[in-house]
Amino acid sequence: MTMARCDGVFAPVITPFTEALEIDLENYLHHCRWLQSQGAGLAVFGTNSEAASLGLAEKLEALEALVANGIDPARLMPGTGSCALPDTVALTRKAMSLGCAGVLMLPPYYYKNVSDDGLYSYFAEVIDRVADARLRIYLYHIPAVSGVAISHPLIERLAHAYPEQIAGIKDSSGDAAHLAQLNELQVPDFRVFCGSESLLLENLRQGGAGCISATANVNPGPIRALFTHWQDEDAESRQQQLNQVRELFQRFPMIPALKTVVGEFSARPGWSRVRPPLLPLPTETRRKLLDEIRGVDFQMPDI
Amino acid sequence: MTMARCDGVFAPVITPFTEALEIDLENYLHHCRWLQSQGAGLAVFGTNSEAASLGLAEKLEALEALVANGIDPARLMPGTGSCALPDTVALTRKAMSLGCAGVLMLPPYYYKNVSDDGLYSYFAEVIDRVADARLRIYLYHIPAVSGVAISHPLIERLAHAYPEQIAGIKDSSGDAAHLAQLNELQVPDFRVFCGSESLLLENLRQGGAGCISATANVNPGPIRALFTHWQDEDAESRQQQLNQVRELFQRFPMIPALKTVVGEFSARPGWSRVRPPLLPLPTETRRKLLDEIRGVDFQMPDI
Repeated sequence: MTMARCDGVFAPVITPFTEALEIDLENYLHHCRWLQSQGAGLAVFGTNSEAASLGLAEKLEALEALVANGIDPARLMPGTGSCALPDTVALTRKAMSLGCAGVLMLPPYYYKNVSDDGLYSYFAEVIDRVADARLRIYLYHIPAVSGVAISHPLIERLAHAYPEQIAGIKDSSGDAAHLAQLNELQVPDFRVFCGSESLLLENLRQGGAGCISATANVNPGPIRALFTHWQDEDAESRQQQLNQVRELFQRFPMIPALKTVVGEFSARPGWSRVRPPLLPLPTETRRKLLDEIRGVDFQMPDI
Repeated sequence: MTMARCDGVFAPVITPFTEALEIDLENYLHHCRWLQSQGAGLAVFGTNSEAASLGLAEKLEALEALVANGIDPARLMPGTGSCALPDTVALTRKAMSLGCAGVLMLPPYYYKNVSDDGLYSYFAEVIDRVADARLRIYLYHIPAVSGVAISHPLIERLAHAYPEQIAGIKDSSGDAAHLAQLNELQVPDFRVFCGSESLLLENLRQGGAGCISATANVNPGPIRALFTHWQDEDAESRQQQLNQVRELFQRFPMIPALKTVVGEFSARPGWSRVRPPLLPLPTETRRKLLDEIRGVDFQMPDI
């Protein structure tokens, strides 16, 4: 049986914390349900989810809690990649056992300048150990943060060895030329997601699969609408509308800005908490962000 | 009570693996005991220990097993820093409960360009949560690998707030000028370790505390002897002797090279295993390394 591959719009779901900086399940479920209601898939444990700041045990428990509380695993793509092989295997296995559609997988990111042979060996070992025919991996290319790129020869070699498992990539390079190269790879049904909705129309025109974007946490409906209507006449103007919101957030530290806005519009102020080394927005920056967002032609839904 | 601070020569202990890539406790204990017999302290879970490739549960278990099997915790300085606050806290607490002399602490290294305020908040949160008067932290500055530097203002601010806990630093910048600046910081009894024995004599002359060096895994006795005899007339020639060994290893991928040499001289070939994304040395490189090391004026003790 061939599993369906993912497409569409995914939010790297921001992670709410209690005062003790534990995961706040109530706010988490509330936000996940709203995102799903807007047509967004859930890429929990992404960069913008502060996934690196969460321990393995927390992630295993949170993923289980989401599904146990009715979040549809068919639209879940948890980030499971870490530096440590056993942690990546354990979280990926959990995702498979819960029926998640796929996993987004960072390369191990502590050692720099590792060879493609070494990265190949890592991903191959993970796939062999998970040993689950349902496994679908979306590789995660975000070199500015991880410091470890996913090269095109590495993708081709992995996809050749594991044609079912290597399902696609998230390209957070922000480089349109690089995105185009990924869409031209000779890998059958390889699903290319851009890391920002600012490249969504371009990506879809190139045959790409969609986007996995931070700002889908606050603007999922309109991003999803461009995905649905990208062949319509108004696609360009939809794209421009999305860009305004994206550009606004890019002028602020992304993660605390997203949390500030979600907290404000959902009237759940606990959302503004982040785990160190990130910091909440200073009061003045917070005010500026909320002023600006209210000034943009942007319908923040009532979440 | 003021706890003693560390000095001397520490090895970031390489981690042996079984065929299944689990930690091989027998080889681990054998190597740790030999290092201690040579006068080296044990900085287990360092960069050269492949610590980032180990899961939290493995580290907790291994540390406990070392102490349970007679390794002296008074000369143990495990690396406990990780990206995730709860993991750092859990491993640091374990180290304290076992009586370890100190911990070597990486900053959280996934997010790049984080502010000093954010890093301060991270370390402060760890110290507050561990809440153990015995805690002694040696900060770990290795920006080429971690991507996150420990700035001098950050050190001063932390040491001012936590004068007992902030005990020193390992400087793996490899930059002699930077090392000198650290030794000049106005922080009482701040212990500065260089990350390579090639700077050991210079560091000791500046008032530094010693070194924590990869090659102490294979050359601990002579490095320790320079630490002991640095004021003797033959100190320069000792330093030059050490440099030859160090420079030899620097021409090879460090971790697999160390494991190859320890495996060869201890007749325990399983040592050559590494976890991906690292790779064992290719046969030809392995032969070249072993040829070269036998050619150097270097007494590899019979381990």
